Amino acid sequence: MRLHIPTSLRWSDLDAYGHVNNAQMFGLFEEARIHAFWAGGDGVADDHFPTRILEGGPDAKTFTLIAHQEIEYLLPIPYIRDPLDIQLWIGHLGGASIDISYEVYSPLVSEGEAQPQPTLFCRASTTIVLVDSKTMMPRRLTDEERLAVGPYVETPVVFKKKSS
Amino acid sequence: MRLHIPTSLRWSDLDAYGHVNNAQMFGLFEEARIHAFWAGGDGVADDHFPTRILEGGPDAKTFTLIAHQEIEYLLPIPYIRDPLDIQLWIGHLGGASIDISYEVYSPLVSEGEAQPQPTLFCRASTTIVLVDSKTMMPRRLTDEERLAVGPYVETPVVFKKKSS
Amino acid sequence: MRLHIPTSLRWSDLDAYGHVNNAQMFGLFEEARIHAFWAGGDGVADDHFPTRILEGGPDAKTFTLIAHQEIEYLLPIPYIRDPLDIQLWIGHLGGASIDISYEVYSPLVSEGEAQPQPTLFCRASTTIVLVDSKTMMPRRLTDEERLAVGPYVETPVVFKKKSS
Amino acid sequence: MRLHIPTSLRWSDLDAYGHVNNAQMFGLFEEARIHAFWAGGDGVADDHFPTRILEGGPDAKTFTLIAHQEIEYLLPIPYIRDPLDIQLWIGHLGGASIDISYEVYSPLVSEGEAQPQPTLFCRASTTIVLVDSKTMMPRRLTDEERLAVGPYVETPVVFKKKSS
Repeated sequence: MRLHIPTSLRWSDLDAYGHVNNAQMFGLFEEARIHAFWAGGDGVADDHFPTRILEGGPDAKTFTLIAHQEIEYLLPIPYIRDPLDIQLWIGHLGGASIDISYEVYSPLVSEGEAQPQPTLFCRASTTIVLVDSKTMMPRRLTDEERLAVGPYVETPVVFKKKSS
Repeated sequence: MRLHIPTSLRWSDLDAYGHVNNAQMFGLFEEARIHAFWAGGDGVADDHFPTRILEGGPDAKTFTLIAHQEIEYLLPIPYIRDPLDIQLWIGHLGGASIDISYEVYSPLVSEGEAQPQPTLFCRASTTIVLVDSKTMMPRRLTDEERLAVGPYVETPVVFKKKSS
Repeated sequence: MRLHIPTSLRWSDLDAYGHVNNAQMFGLFEEARIHAFWAGGDGVADDHFPTRILEGGPDAKTFTLIAHQEIEYLLPIPYIRDPLDIQLWIGHLGGASIDISYEVYSPLVSEGEAQPQPTLFCRASTTIVLVDSKTMMPRRLTDEERLAVGPYVETPVVFKKKSS
Repeated sequence: MRLHIPTSLRWSDLDAYGHVNNAQMFGLFEEARIHAFWAGGDGVADDHFPTRILEGGPDAKTFTLIAHQEIEYLLPIPYIRDPLDIQLWIGHLGGASIDISYEVYSPLVSEGEAQPQPTLFCRASTTIVLVDSKTMMPRRLTDEERLAVGPYVETPVVFKKKSS
């Protein structure tokens, strides 16, 4: 089971080649993670995203630090006004860490319209570590947290163009 | 042999946690690559960087597309006014591609000052593919290009916190 | 009459003070302008935005260059997950230019909920000039364009904290 | 008397029109201000910049909030590898505020080379207000601070393309 996070580009994400800049992709993944995992504070009902288990924002008791990221670009992403369909799932649940897998697809069309074959632009992964925001020491995932994200644990994304 | 590319942070690279945002790191690698590999157009004598073999800018005959990136964060990077010491070398030379390895260290101090033990903040790699800017098809590295970067081919960076 | 453009922050718009960085505000205005004035290409029906009179994107026959911008910040903007309510109208229609006025408010709540007094964070203006993308010379607004934006011409935004 | 702050572009400052994005300009002004006014912490001797009177960083006792900004774009800025010559001076010293004026010119060439006529790309101003970082209330400029920046007080920049 995957989460579908509609994530909008900004015009300024493009660089002088007319494509989404490589660094901006990681900002889009950050937005998708926040949408998927941070609780409360926006108009999206949290029960629509049962994975919203983490406190967000600079005052949270738990910070999520990033330990590792990997990305494989298949096709340059042009300017698209509709939100990209970022598909996101859990590749691995560690003791204090979560491996997140992503695939970035062309926008979903509205219901009732013919859905063209979606284009896969890139795949990626992020390992986040939960740390206590006071001590900055890792803290274990609680049983409640494991339960909430459990249904979204799937085989992690596989990269084909590995660094040799 | 490694290239040392002094690369400056901007205040706006920080996010609300007071550290360099994860996505901004890839912008810094982009700047370091441009400094190392793009020919001409700045005040730095190209013979100081024999690796400056690629035309730069939007009008170049060769574009460099990114196929794969990987990063391992060891320590959050705070705001530092002196340029970071991005160390950069070639991990692998393919037919039409170059694997670049990086290690990001705290700033070098001026000559004559005591050099403290540098701090390693993160390690990363980027695979770039040379493509013809008209056809967008990969084009092979020339012998001249291989010769220029040859001295900087070393064992590729090794990541420890691999996605499981 | 004003357009209301719901415009989402990104986490990375914040800087180390925990507020939306001053420069990022201009990226948000850019997004609001695109939403208001660029035709086609997204899921929003253009008849909902009769002001969508300009071709967008890098291949357009008309580019919109920015001649002047001004902003007055009233309150720092914290991280807010719901989209800001950017109110936008035309302060002046010139021969080949459009003065756009903005006021940036806290998010609108959903219908049916009690609407608190909105917070005004900042006011701003942008003068854009229409230029032919081939010659880069200004080109006059057509009668059709004037007609489309006419209803949104209002008294321009007034700045109180003028540079002395 | 003006300060000359060499300020480097990044490739990612360009947008899909191949020019420095309008919002990025304000990031460049921010960097120039920090270079001019923040004390300590980099390799540049502070006596070379007697205007370095403000503590920098997120832990400072004084924050500098921005009250107002204005910019007039004369020419699009293409990708330039050498640092732009941002000229910066004080347009007005208020009780708790400083109006900063800028003109952004093409790079200075090295000494000994023929200096071409510099190109003026844009002019701008920023009003910053000094606030106590605990109370967030404005605090007056000290006599010492006034003395340090006094020599750089000049006629403020004049904008020609005013919003009508």
